[in-house]
Amino acid sequence: MNFGIVGLGRMGHAVAKRVVDGGHVVFGFDVNEQAKKDAREIGVHVVDRVEQITEHTDIIWLMLPAGELVDQTIDTLKPKLKKGAMIIDGGNSNFKDSIARAKKLQNDNIFYLDCGTSGGLYGEKIGFSLMVGGDKAAYEKLIPLFEVIATKDGFGLVGPSGAGHYVKMVHNGVEYALLQAYAEGFHIISHGYYENADLDLAQISEIWMHGSIIRSYILELAHEVFKEDQTFETISGEVAEGGTGRWTVEEAHEQHIAAPTIEDSLCVRACSRQTGGDYTTKIIAMLRKQFGGHAVKKSSSE
Amino acid sequence: MNFGIVGLGRMGHAVAKRVVDGGHVVFGFDVNEQAKKDAREIGVHVVDRVEQITEHTDIIWLMLPAGELVDQTIDTLKPKLKKGAMIIDGGNSNFKDSIARAKKLQNDNIFYLDCGTSGGLYGEKIGFSLMVGGDKAAYEKLIPLFEVIATKDGFGLVGPSGAGHYVKMVHNGVEYALLQAYAEGFHIISHGYYENADLDLAQISEIWMHGSIIRSYILELAHEVFKEDQTFETISGEVAEGGTGRWTVEEAHEQHIAAPTIEDSLCVRACSRQTGGDYTTKIIAMLRKQFGGHAVKKSSSE
Repeated sequence: MNFGIVGLGRMGHAVAKRVVDGGHVVFGFDVNEQAKKDAREIGVHVVDRVEQITEHTDIIWLMLPAGELVDQTIDTLKPKLKKGAMIIDGGNSNFKDSIARAKKLQNDNIFYLDCGTSGGLYGEKIGFSLMVGGDKAAYEKLIPLFEVIATKDGFGLVGPSGAGHYVKMVHNGVEYALLQAYAEGFHIISHGYYENADLDLAQISEIWMHGSIIRSYILELAHEVFKEDQTFETISGEVAEGGTGRWTVEEAHEQHIAAPTIEDSLCVRACSRQTGGDYTTKIIAMLRKQFGGHAVKKSSSE
Repeated sequence: MNFGIVGLGRMGHAVAKRVVDGGHVVFGFDVNEQAKKDAREIGVHVVDRVEQITEHTDIIWLMLPAGELVDQTIDTLKPKLKKGAMIIDGGNSNFKDSIARAKKLQNDNIFYLDCGTSGGLYGEKIGFSLMVGGDKAAYEKLIPLFEVIATKDGFGLVGPSGAGHYVKMVHNGVEYALLQAYAEGFHIISHGYYENADLDLAQISEIWMHGSIIRSYILELAHEVFKEDQTFETISGEVAEGGTGRWTVEEAHEQHIAAPTIEDSLCVRACSRQTGGDYTTKIIAMLRKQFGGHAVKKSSSE
């Protein structure tokens, strides 16, 4: 199967690699020269202009930052696409944008599937978790691709247009709160009553990983972080955010659903960027780096 | 090795079973006739009065509700214990009580180790996660027992007296927030924008279990819950609590550490018992039942 991908950054590169390794022929585009080079090295046929992808395939995966760039790319591709072509938006687009795009493209007989993609840096190795929204027949045609991109049992059509990005948005909101919850706990253990006893967060996270109720992938990442450092003296506690956490909170408000832990986590991050954060947000920054390669700021005192 | 255990309820029974299966001789006591009967059936030598355990062993595990009963039991056992005897409190005692008890018993040359025990109902099968606080030499003598009670790599001496219960207290605080975070997310997915599209929480939790950043044991439990029911029409959203979540919040206050998600989770539970709760707290109630066998109230309209 020929497969096109626009956006060969961290996540796009990983998706392309899995599709190439799955035995498909992949055509890719990015504006960044290094990204192009890295893609060529894993066997992607890199084209010079984005619309050239349509000469090779009618299945095009977008892995772009949410917003205008997605619309611009669709506008560029659209005149070249055949009827029945399929665009899969694997990024973190707002679900309402995805609904609108799918509706608009439907008029031209182009299918637009929204696909939430979770797994971070490690996803390239074990496969991603994919939540897809949109047309069922189009989804079914793409199953061979989802099978190589996703981890085993890690994909599915979750609902109509937008539902994939909606579920991924909520996934990210939950992720905000989980990171915050663990970080609060480790902060208390490290700086609370036993501050002077130097409890070892690497040891404690390892004990918890084996048999406790709160064992999880995030806990394993925390263990990796704590094995390297538990002082975090050289880093800032400022934590960035994408749009998804904020959208989850806005959606909760709109739906009159109380989501206090997700909302708190968002507020703590906003506060961290004003104040430089605390030990809790330093842990969150390090966890985000660990799973997603997100940049961590140096402490201003360094 | 001979081993005594006081308290043969759900958790005590599971600990006793693992020690018996590990090839040790176990003497047990409980006031409840059914608990005694169940213990005999798995090979525990059940004694009639708690102090009779001391005729057989100087290693006694307490698996009792936190509070006075622990002190009463220690007071009853103490006159019969030899120098160098070891009491392990495997329950959820307040860490300050554990520090005081250890100090008091030290005067009589009795070792008191505090041991946080996590794992719930499933722990009997795969082993528990054990966080131990107290004397290092006493801990080392008990390693053969911890090895059979815990899952592989799931135990360790985390610090001085009280540290085991402290770390378990924080573990439970984090657990409160994690349950709340997932439940908020599933509430939004189920009752938000796509309410009428009937998104399937069993399917979504399964997709997330495979490759997503938020995969965890709690998510697996949620999947088991949602496979059975996603309406929760027949149950109340009232969620009970033990003491540990509240203690975590009190400790955070005392230490001037912000722990908003843990605190919110506690408040949501308190509110649920006043109001009957919402879909979020129904999920939490079901998750607690799933991992710990905690009772779920029937809906008052039933």
